[in-house]
Amino acid sequence: MNSLELVLFGAGRIGQIHGANAAAHPRAKLRWVVDPNLEAATALAKKFGAKATTSPEEALADKGNTAAIIASSTNTHVELLTASSKAGLAIFCEKPIDNSLERVDLALAELSKSKVPFFIAFNRRFDPSFAALRGAVKNGDLGQVETVIITSRDPSPPPIAYVKVSGGLFRDMMIHDLDMARWLLPEEPVQVFAQGSALVDPAIGQAGDVDTAVVSMKTKSGVLCQISNSRRAVYGYDQRIEVHGAKGMLQAGNLTPTSVVHAGAAGVVSDKPLHFFLERYQKAYQAEMEHFVTAILDKKPLSTGAEDGRRALVLAEAAMKSLEKNAPVTL
Amino acid sequence: MNSLELVLFGAGRIGQIHGANAAAHPRAKLRWVVDPNLEAATALAKKFGAKATTSPEEALADKGNTAAIIASSTNTHVELLTASSKAGLAIFCEKPIDNSLERVDLALAELSKSKVPFFIAFNRRFDPSFAALRGAVKNGDLGQVETVIITSRDPSPPPIAYVKVSGGLFRDMMIHDLDMARWLLPEEPVQVFAQGSALVDPAIGQAGDVDTAVVSMKTKSGVLCQISNSRRAVYGYDQRIEVHGAKGMLQAGNLTPTSVVHAGAAGVVSDKPLHFFLERYQKAYQAEMEHFVTAILDKKPLSTGAEDGRRALVLAEAAMKSLEKNAPVTL
Amino acid sequence: MNSLELVLFGAGRIGQIHGANAAAHPRAKLRWVVDPNLEAATALAKKFGAKATTSPEEALADKGNTAAIIASSTNTHVELLTASSKAGLAIFCEKPIDNSLERVDLALAELSKSKVPFFIAFNRRFDPSFAALRGAVKNGDLGQVETVIITSRDPSPPPIAYVKVSGGLFRDMMIHDLDMARWLLPEEPVQVFAQGSALVDPAIGQAGDVDTAVVSMKTKSGVLCQISNSRRAVYGYDQRIEVHGAKGMLQAGNLTPTSVVHAGAAGVVSDKPLHFFLERYQKAYQAEMEHFVTAILDKKPLSTGAEDGRRALVLAEAAMKSLEKNAPVTL
Amino acid sequence: MNSLELVLFGAGRIGQIHGANAAAHPRAKLRWVVDPNLEAATALAKKFGAKATTSPEEALADKGNTAAIIASSTNTHVELLTASSKAGLAIFCEKPIDNSLERVDLALAELSKSKVPFFIAFNRRFDPSFAALRGAVKNGDLGQVETVIITSRDPSPPPIAYVKVSGGLFRDMMIHDLDMARWLLPEEPVQVFAQGSALVDPAIGQAGDVDTAVVSMKTKSGVLCQISNSRRAVYGYDQRIEVHGAKGMLQAGNLTPTSVVHAGAAGVVSDKPLHFFLERYQKAYQAEMEHFVTAILDKKPLSTGAEDGRRALVLAEAAMKSLEKNAPVTL
Repeated sequence: MNSLELVLFGAGRIGQIHGANAAAHPRAKLRWVVDPNLEAATALAKKFGAKATTSPEEALADKGNTAAIIASSTNTHVELLTASSKAGLAIFCEKPIDNSLERVDLALAELSKSKVPFFIAFNRRFDPSFAALRGAVKNGDLGQVETVIITSRDPSPPPIAYVKVSGGLFRDMMIHDLDMARWLLPEEPVQVFAQGSALVDPAIGQAGDVDTAVVSMKTKSGVLCQISNSRRAVYGYDQRIEVHGAKGMLQAGNLTPTSVVHAGAAGVVSDKPLHFFLERYQKAYQAEMEHFVTAILDKKPLSTGAEDGRRALVLAEAAMKSLEKNAPVTL
Repeated sequence: MNSLELVLFGAGRIGQIHGANAAAHPRAKLRWVVDPNLEAATALAKKFGAKATTSPEEALADKGNTAAIIASSTNTHVELLTASSKAGLAIFCEKPIDNSLERVDLALAELSKSKVPFFIAFNRRFDPSFAALRGAVKNGDLGQVETVIITSRDPSPPPIAYVKVSGGLFRDMMIHDLDMARWLLPEEPVQVFAQGSALVDPAIGQAGDVDTAVVSMKTKSGVLCQISNSRRAVYGYDQRIEVHGAKGMLQAGNLTPTSVVHAGAAGVVSDKPLHFFLERYQKAYQAEMEHFVTAILDKKPLSTGAEDGRRALVLAEAAMKSLEKNAPVTL
Repeated sequence: MNSLELVLFGAGRIGQIHGANAAAHPRAKLRWVVDPNLEAATALAKKFGAKATTSPEEALADKGNTAAIIASSTNTHVELLTASSKAGLAIFCEKPIDNSLERVDLALAELSKSKVPFFIAFNRRFDPSFAALRGAVKNGDLGQVETVIITSRDPSPPPIAYVKVSGGLFRDMMIHDLDMARWLLPEEPVQVFAQGSALVDPAIGQAGDVDTAVVSMKTKSGVLCQISNSRRAVYGYDQRIEVHGAKGMLQAGNLTPTSVVHAGAAGVVSDKPLHFFLERYQKAYQAEMEHFVTAILDKKPLSTGAEDGRRALVLAEAAMKSLEKNAPVTL
Repeated sequence: MNSLELVLFGAGRIGQIHGANAAAHPRAKLRWVVDPNLEAATALAKKFGAKATTSPEEALADKGNTAAIIASSTNTHVELLTASSKAGLAIFCEKPIDNSLERVDLALAELSKSKVPFFIAFNRRFDPSFAALRGAVKNGDLGQVETVIITSRDPSPPPIAYVKVSGGLFRDMMIHDLDMARWLLPEEPVQVFAQGSALVDPAIGQAGDVDTAVVSMKTKSGVLCQISNSRRAVYGYDQRIEVHGAKGMLQAGNLTPTSVVHAGAAGVVSDKPLHFFLERYQKAYQAEMEHFVTAILDKKPLSTGAEDGRRALVLAEAAMKSLEKNAPVTL
């Protein structure tokens, strides 16, 4: 196989990103763009020289396909993943697999039957700064890891309509941080404690969700982890990681559009962090597609699999249970 | 009263700092240095033109005294505080009042009887960076406060002999952070959850204590607080505060000995933070003495009182109980 | 015209960059890659679906061409520029036009005859940080500009063979900084004073060049400018600008591969700046191609022209004369 | 000798600083404060338990004196230095010795006759950051030094009346930077070129002075130095040094009152640099007094002498001549 021949499910915001990155890859080609909105599918397909359809079946019937990108709305992931798996395609799946653990398990069962390569796209693992930090941790630069501290704040809350179908802050937003925690901790967390409030927008509280939350976790050998989330940070997308160990501390800070600093009578002013995930994780999106394409074509292992998707969700559900019970949850 | 005439209890490390700051103050004078170690008392007294004794009674019998500095070992605080209070002296008391809440309450009862001015010296409240951060919070620069995040790491663990009599990490070390939390939160915490481990030195675990700990707290209206502590940070004393609110984030970072940066083939290297509390809080120690002397002489209110000492201890004990029960503690 | 149909002259390092950026642009298409090295031309042409040739005449005979990118070796620029101009093509020309002012003037005469759009590619003007800084200057954020300070250091000296044909540090390297100075100063410099030494490599001195140099310039109304250059900076490519004015200072600092910081026993270590121009100015190269393609197709003015190329060279020659005469040169 | 017994000449701003630092030193005692303004002398003397007089002769007649601090107005330095020298006192002299090279030479002749220890107080040499930077240079951390870059900007221009008697920017302000250059360069500068303008305040130009200036210098072996000065920086006192060498770059940046950063909707704002020299060089003033007292009492060499004062002035005069002649000046 010289080139991945791809079906892209989803022509929305994230589908456009993955589609563009795949199309720009010298070893990949978009064959199909599938979206219930034919206009969106057609626009995207045209841009990449692909065919458009509203029918997954039509696209999957094309024997020339070798891989699928699932970037459609979350509630369609399991169905499309199952169909793509049955079609024998390697799968790139935007996180999460699903917001229901039960349905995730169905998907995992299917995948374990078909044995198609499966990649769950936790973009932050491909952020150059986070990847360098993790490389240093794995390299032993800190010695034994003792505490992992993760900060994640969105610039502004999503529309309340989205909040209602999002699965809640823990499954929709903190799941990224929980995956970061798993990636950085030397072993799986065994205890999760969550606190949360609706401080940003009372409507979020009325929808049964929180917009400000902290989680503490502990592993079997006692390594600790703190996560802090907010649906609002007026200074931009706040994405930081700090790891402490026997030999010191590693920090990965925010990135800014420019390095310009203005020193004036009112203080020394520098850029706000990059606005949101499209800007901050632009390179991460490219790098994860590069990883997927190269791993499939060169028959190398994929760095994340369905089990990683499942475990992050298990932690998110534990945090939700902890918040509900007001007690730590043991895993 | 033109000048405070002071009895200093304690000629050890912290006694020397408070003694020197008092002696250097244009409106204060050391009259007595009291320490069970006569040699130490004499050395210090000589330096400041004061008299030395091993007997608190002898020093307190001097009718020329107007105030006392209690900087002796923690287990003598209540007794000396009581005696100073009965002698009608204004009291500057190094934190904590005592490690036992029962004895703290005895001290508070005595103080409420004598009505002498009482100052509990939480040095961090006088750190210029922390004070500026808090000033900005109180000024409304953040709008409604949503999350407070406090980092406190010592450069290296104390001797195990000290650990055993210290009252434990929460009462000995985190009490400072708990006071910072109270100082920065818009209302008192009502829930405390603690996790801790002995990761730095197993001997600390064997002594029944932890050396790495995190605490999460929540106030009645849902404001959140995270604290992270370690008895070791090989890069120096790590003292940082971060507060998030509706209008953004305030951070107070570490301080360094110099502003020198070396850009070389191996990276860009800057100073480690100031080594430990004597270096980091040098200005805070001066400022708290300035506050005490000025407030007493000018009959202004003291910024902290016995109740602040008590509440920080209540939080520390709640954290200890939470760790023991592995459950959040409600206050 | 819906799309630029491009002839690319030069399949070397910089040709590959401009070629790739043009090919990736949705409104541009590479038709020809021309290089004396047919293998290089063919490899590049194949990648972009273009035709390869060693003959400029063959490529320029194609009536489908609408624009040319001149990214060949400096000594061929004037000839190719003239031929492209006669062919009526819009021209994107890598700096410099030529190292000889006489030949530059020939080129300008030809361009003024043909009136084809001509863009001289001073990449730094398109660096996001430098562009933001300049935007702030033009916006009046500093009020009246008083001093411009430009730092430019290469990570390591070029091969001595290159040094010998480079035209010298001032024409080869500082010309970028001289263009930055012109771009940031409120008016043209009228006085130039240069000092230089061969401190990095004596062979550079033996070749009649310098590897370490500073220049001071002054405009008619007295605005000052300092430039500092070195052919070596072991910490990476050092590219900084600082502008002072009545209302403060603007600085644009170096960029780093990641935001990771390691605080350890030996200090706090952060990334070195991005290694060299390919890394640092990656976005600038994209942005200047975007500017060229869009300006030509949409008939908007190009932001730099032949006169900018000429004036930067005039300043470089003034600096050389100043160094030679050991005296300031008046323009 | 157990303690320095000091005559302080000058009860103005800088006299008060040196007086307070001397008085606070455990090995020094102020005996006399001398100032033409008796009220000022008396106020200061009272604070330190010294005697006040308007008569240098009266003070110098006291046989108990062992050292003098000359912190009076510049035009009295030579006379007081001569008298103190004749009285056999060790001398701490605020820079400059005098604004006239002729009179400096008279002073040097007198000092070489009397052989009293003489210290010229270039405060910046004792700034912890600059001292650490220089220590690293001397330690070989940069290998061979290639370029020294010095930035010095005052927060706001002095009153025009002061400008007129100040000796001009080069002798009054840049002399500090010229001393820094001498301190950091591996050998004396042999060429000086200056450019300057009155951009901040036309009245400064009318007074025959400049308020914005740059200087370039070169040593015999070709090491380069750039200095940039302004009488105004609305963001505060801008005091930075940057040294480049074979092994990298050392930078000493500005210092700030606090480490507080506010990230808000308008950007990320940190403190302006410390306001002016009293704040920035507070520790330097203490350290230079500590050096003087200790060196004299312990018979150790003083780190600067009259020749350092002379050479900085020679460079300042060379810069003035260069500006006047619009040509480099060779030394």
